Amino acid sequence: MNLWHISEDAFHPDLKTIHSQESVFTIGNGYFCTRGTFEEGYPRDNTATLLYGVFDAIPIAKEELANIPDWLPIKLFINGERFRLDRGTILSYHRWLSMQDGVLHRTVRWKSPRGVRILVHSERFASLADEHVGIIRYNVTLEDAGSDQECELDVRASLNIAEGNYDVIHWENVDQGHQNDIIWYHCETKKSLVHLAQTMSFRSASPDVHQKIVDSDVSPSISFAGTLAVGATFSAEKVVVMYTSRDTSDPVNAALEHHQNLSGYHAGSAQTTNHARFQEENLPKAASAQSLLYERMLQQQRAAWQPVWEKADIIIEGDDTAQRAVRFNLYQLRINVSSHDDRYSTAAKGMTGFGYRGHIFHDTEIFMLPFYTYTMPNIARNLLLYRYHLLPAARKKAASNGYEGAQYPWESTLNGEETTPSSIIHPETGEVIPVLNGFIELHITASIAHAVWQYWQVTGDDDFMRDYGAEILLSTAQFWGSRAEKNEQHDDYEINNVIGPDEWHEHVNNNTYTNYMARQNIRYALYIQDWLRQTNPAKAQQLEQQMDLTNEITSHWQDVVQHMRILQDPQTKVFEQFDGFFKLELLDQSQYKGRKDSYQGILGVEQVQKYRIIKQADVLMLLTVLDQEFDLQTKEANWDYYYPITDHDYGSSLTPALHVILACELGRIEQAYEFFTKGALVDLENLRGNTPEGIHLACSGAVWQATILGFAGLRLNNDGYTTDPHWPDGWTRLAFTFFHKGEQFHVDLRK
Amino acid sequence: MNLWHISEDAFHPDLKTIHSQESVFTIGNGYFCTRGTFEEGYPRDNTATLLYGVFDAIPIAKEELANIPDWLPIKLFINGERFRLDRGTILSYHRWLSMQDGVLHRTVRWKSPRGVRILVHSERFASLADEHVGIIRYNVTLEDAGSDQECELDVRASLNIAEGNYDVIHWENVDQGHQNDIIWYHCETKKSLVHLAQTMSFRSASPDVHQKIVDSDVSPSISFAGTLAVGATFSAEKVVVMYTSRDTSDPVNAALEHHQNLSGYHAGSAQTTNHARFQEENLPKAASAQSLLYERMLQQQRAAWQPVWEKADIIIEGDDTAQRAVRFNLYQLRINVSSHDDRYSTAAKGMTGFGYRGHIFHDTEIFMLPFYTYTMPNIARNLLLYRYHLLPAARKKAASNGYEGAQYPWESTLNGEETTPSSIIHPETGEVIPVLNGFIELHITASIAHAVWQYWQVTGDDDFMRDYGAEILLSTAQFWGSRAEKNEQHDDYEINNVIGPDEWHEHVNNNTYTNYMARQNIRYALYIQDWLRQTNPAKAQQLEQQMDLTNEITSHWQDVVQHMRILQDPQTKVFEQFDGFFKLELLDQSQYKGRKDSYQGILGVEQVQKYRIIKQADVLMLLTVLDQEFDLQTKEANWDYYYPITDHDYGSSLTPALHVILACELGRIEQAYEFFTKGALVDLENLRGNTPEGIHLACSGAVWQATILGFAGLRLNNDGYTTDPHWPDGWTRLAFTFFHKGEQFHVDLRK
Repeated sequence: MNLWHISEDAFHPDLKTIHSQESVFTIGNGYFCTRGTFEEGYPRDNTATLLYGVFDAIPIAKEELANIPDWLPIKLFINGERFRLDRGTILSYHRWLSMQDGVLHRTVRWKSPRGVRILVHSERFASLADEHVGIIRYNVTLEDAGSDQECELDVRASLNIAEGNYDVIHWENVDQGHQNDIIWYHCETKKSLVHLAQTMSFRSASPDVHQKIVDSDVSPSISFAGTLAVGATFSAEKVVVMYTSRDTSDPVNAALEHHQNLSGYHAGSAQTTNHARFQEENLPKAASAQSLLYERMLQQQRAAWQPVWEKADIIIEGDDTAQRAVRFNLYQLRINVSSHDDRYSTAAKGMTGFGYRGHIFHDTEIFMLPFYTYTMPNIARNLLLYRYHLLPAARKKAASNGYEGAQYPWESTLNGEETTPSSIIHPETGEVIPVLNGFIELHITASIAHAVWQYWQVTGDDDFMRDYGAEILLSTAQFWGSRAEKNEQHDDYEINNVIGPDEWHEHVNNNTYTNYMARQNIRYALYIQDWLRQTNPAKAQQLEQQMDLTNEITSHWQDVVQHMRILQDPQTKVFEQFDGFFKLELLDQSQYKGRKDSYQGILGVEQVQKYRIIKQADVLMLLTVLDQEFDLQTKEANWDYYYPITDHDYGSSLTPALHVILACELGRIEQAYEFFTKGALVDLENLRGNTPEGIHLACSGAVWQATILGFAGLRLNNDGYTTDPHWPDGWTRLAFTFFHKGEQFHVDLRK
Repeated sequence: MNLWHISEDAFHPDLKTIHSQESVFTIGNGYFCTRGTFEEGYPRDNTATLLYGVFDAIPIAKEELANIPDWLPIKLFINGERFRLDRGTILSYHRWLSMQDGVLHRTVRWKSPRGVRILVHSERFASLADEHVGIIRYNVTLEDAGSDQECELDVRASLNIAEGNYDVIHWENVDQGHQNDIIWYHCETKKSLVHLAQTMSFRSASPDVHQKIVDSDVSPSISFAGTLAVGATFSAEKVVVMYTSRDTSDPVNAALEHHQNLSGYHAGSAQTTNHARFQEENLPKAASAQSLLYERMLQQQRAAWQPVWEKADIIIEGDDTAQRAVRFNLYQLRINVSSHDDRYSTAAKGMTGFGYRGHIFHDTEIFMLPFYTYTMPNIARNLLLYRYHLLPAARKKAASNGYEGAQYPWESTLNGEETTPSSIIHPETGEVIPVLNGFIELHITASIAHAVWQYWQVTGDDDFMRDYGAEILLSTAQFWGSRAEKNEQHDDYEINNVIGPDEWHEHVNNNTYTNYMARQNIRYALYIQDWLRQTNPAKAQQLEQQMDLTNEITSHWQDVVQHMRILQDPQTKVFEQFDGFFKLELLDQSQYKGRKDSYQGILGVEQVQKYRIIKQADVLMLLTVLDQEFDLQTKEANWDYYYPITDHDYGSSLTPALHVILACELGRIEQAYEFFTKGALVDLENLRGNTPEGIHLACSGAVWQATILGFAGLRLNNDGYTTDPHWPDGWTRLAFTFFHKGEQFHVDLRK
């Protein structure tokens, strides 16, 4: 078993498995991701290529990442019979994702309905060295043609605009043409008017085939037709280059130029081309040179992935399943984030599917960001810059709610406006389902502040804190300062009418997670205000003036910090999740044994609120996120209280892996490993049934945290770091690296 | 001015006009309609071909007519320059729809950006003689090539799956291939799994061009490339044949066979074809024979339209605008209804656009059906059979609401379930808008009963009444009998909590229209029960048993008829629209002069309910639909009351034309003509701004009623018919025909 491979040894033709594996076998490079559909297509597959930050408007949910014209199609006909996995007989099948270099391979031995036997091998990757490029190598070997010595071969590569986000098509053709043997395709989104150019070449050094180019506004193509002898292999390379108007003002020429430079062609500019016509000239025969392109780009690809793994890899010995699963999650964390673009962030499902439409949640800051902060701090910095750029929109949201400072939206896309729909209609029952999160799930604002703080603690990036971070901390503190309500009777501050991380309980008061994180947010701001005054008084003054941060405000903040209401039983040390939670009725879970749905699904949105049953870690998440604030006794008491009343199987996918950290601290290794598995395999085994809509990227981030902060027990301090390993059964080694204040550390723990 | 032509003499490049004219220039034959987009395409055009009763599922609104792969595309390149109306210079432009034979023509003289001048003439029609066939003739003449004597020509005809209902794509490719020079394309709807086969040929007798076939799963095409000399004309014909799984179990072979029979090819069955590959063989040169196909089919087309106009035409002399507008509405009434299919009916916008998604409303029975009943009774019969087939679903709806008998849905598609969404979400504001019509707009059930009755009265089709109509009348009466609530105090029956035709007032009690029509419905049932007992006692008994129609029920019906509450001021004779309507505040309309929105749009859904301002005829519609029930004095009094408080400009498009009948009876010819114009020109001049979503077919039906029952004053009686002409200014002649009890009558009125 290769520990760098995710493998599939048989083709399972049920659509649920097919769609789930499409998500698993996604390739990507942060500029784009492409789901693992087949080049030949499959009936009702969900093919998708999504680009980082390329959205189109939609009703209700405002905007979504717009699935671009499909660049994968390669259709193969042998003696006129179409090769596709729903036809003929699959004699053998093997597909594997090589995570080390991000290359997806597939080998199929297939017998056509009329008995011709072929071997098809394809490979593809999204170039990490050259992020605008996707490349496919496609080989066909004729193994048996019955009494014939050769077969007629027809291989057609194309781009295809007739693909949407499920059924919704986002692109409109603008123009199309070709230059020599490079096809170019120019389209724009229907509503947001983003322009996209794709160029495509399809080349072969094989003899006895004839190349043909077909221009089309809908599906331009390049084909090879000819004969293939028994035992011979036809080999071709499909190269696609993509640029959008978010990259350059002239994406068509940028893509063409880029493509020509790749392949060594120089055919002049797009303007001089004969647009969109058939062309049959004998094209320059550069194929033999071209056949080297794939190998050359593969070398670059390996070279580009090497430093990624040098920084991100985690070596686990003694548990191959865990080793591969962890790598899979790290792979996903890398392919779904841009290495340089700070105008967008990593979405709930990254770019691996249509789920959550590419919107950004607190998933990024709470679950994924620690991975980036510790291993790829430059990317973490970009993700925080995304939030910095959207401060004006967050200020607007706070103001429109009657508050000061900056309130971040629960769901965020490009312009930072709230993109959570306020209601949805159940597509079958017609029932209107109000969605309150955009109005009252507030804690994301503190999550972002906490992520800024943590980034600064881990990296020591003072420039970032001075130029960007401080303004986020102060603006968000300002929001909380105005949002906290003084209770004169109790002489304390409350935050009422919110949703905490446990989203099954709505309109709650004094959610411990929210209040505590809000207080922490203000603490960070007070600290950083001092720090700024000392280290950079000019910047401090500028911000204070700009934000009108008077002394009254600062002392109000101090008052809020001192008197924020935090509900905790002084005897038991158990935090109360919110006002009145302790008094809710305990749900008798034993009567739901064998259930296949969440408790909310079973009880309904209204009923579930009456019970002491929660969707996901809430108090326990607080104890994990602000780990160093709480002693072990407190953690133990709260674990014992909340662990049994959490829906670990059908609640949120976010927190199982996060529980590992606490479980390790409490020495509950078996439980920790169980949680780790639920997180690490959530997509590889489609544990929640919704991997078809994309992989669970927050869970991937939680798996990194579980492994490093949980099993390895890594903690940073001013002098450096400590580890406190907890060894699941069988694990004998746990090795990884991380950055702390610019220095890289290598940790190699052995049992 | 040709009185059979709808003409456009200049191209207006604003999208609103383009989309509106696409609806106007729709061609069709009842099997399919195709909007008037250009063969060459235009950026952001809304091309659509909809088939009678071919739906796919969608969220919330349940299902919609599924726009099929576009069969129009013909792309033209001269010396590599693309001909399209957004490029180059339009030197002259003329487009006209010949209503007499349903042929759409366009002539464009165009100069390319590099100065080549061409004349393009295209013609197309949906064959009325052979409803599976669409055909296009496409001619290109080279007028000026500068210093050159000839140009390179490239003309590509294709089918294109990358089109949806706006952005929603409904079809998934199944397979594709070609036989000789006929391409076939097989796809199915994504959810309802309707199969569609389209075959396409593209032939030319022109010399110096070379034909090529390109197979594709997305956009298969046939092209001609070659040279065109100055002064020469390239001419080609595109023929498309369409079959679905609603027509036959094997639509691909049905379409191929049909196409071969059209064109004289016999190339074997689809199974033996080489699927989806490039092919370049020299194809059989049958082009010269083929060039006759268009002419031959055009002859058939004229022959097929002739009897339509013999039955449906209305001749108006002295008012050319009215003459053409009336013909346009008659044309639409014909192309949007099948001549033989009784599994579907005519939708609010027919098949001319995406508005109302192909759903059937009371528009059909109240507004359109009289046209069919008087001029094409066999079609009227099919439309009523559609309702008959859906009685089981209507019974289910009644039962699910706790009532007896059959309650028809407000919006209906194939299976007769209620397809009105229960709520919609405003796509921009996110506001939830409850849609009550599916729950409480009840009067459609009586509309259907009335249409059955009227059909019987006009046609004397006793067989229909016995076999189908009676069951509709009895079942709907049964519904009303159980729906009417006994008011013991008043000793009468009420129908509470409804919406009447005026949809701006919701949850009203005792809407006069609803109560009166319900009573009428029961009267019809009582009459027909007697009639059936006398003429066909066995059938009477069978129905009574099947429906459990006891004597108690019959006497209950009689009681309801006698005691139905009908609100009418005994002094003034004015009917009160509903309980309390007279007490609502009168709206001061003078303060809204120059408004561009309906009063509901201005005041809001809640506010408008408080005012005595109505969306459309309600009481006045009753006086029109049951014309012979009311004396002139009553009509006059109600007209004077309701006419001034109706939003004739921005309320419903349904009723302006219907007002004509009453206005004529009251001798208010000027007003009548004003209303007539608002109806007759609603689409030709896009008076309401929503013609882009399709033409107003109910309004077309109302225009027929306005002309025949209004201006001509036609009334039937047992002895025959009478007319009572009212002559708008300028009108000197009004001639038409109709059927009464199987006999055709020709009326020729002259001033």
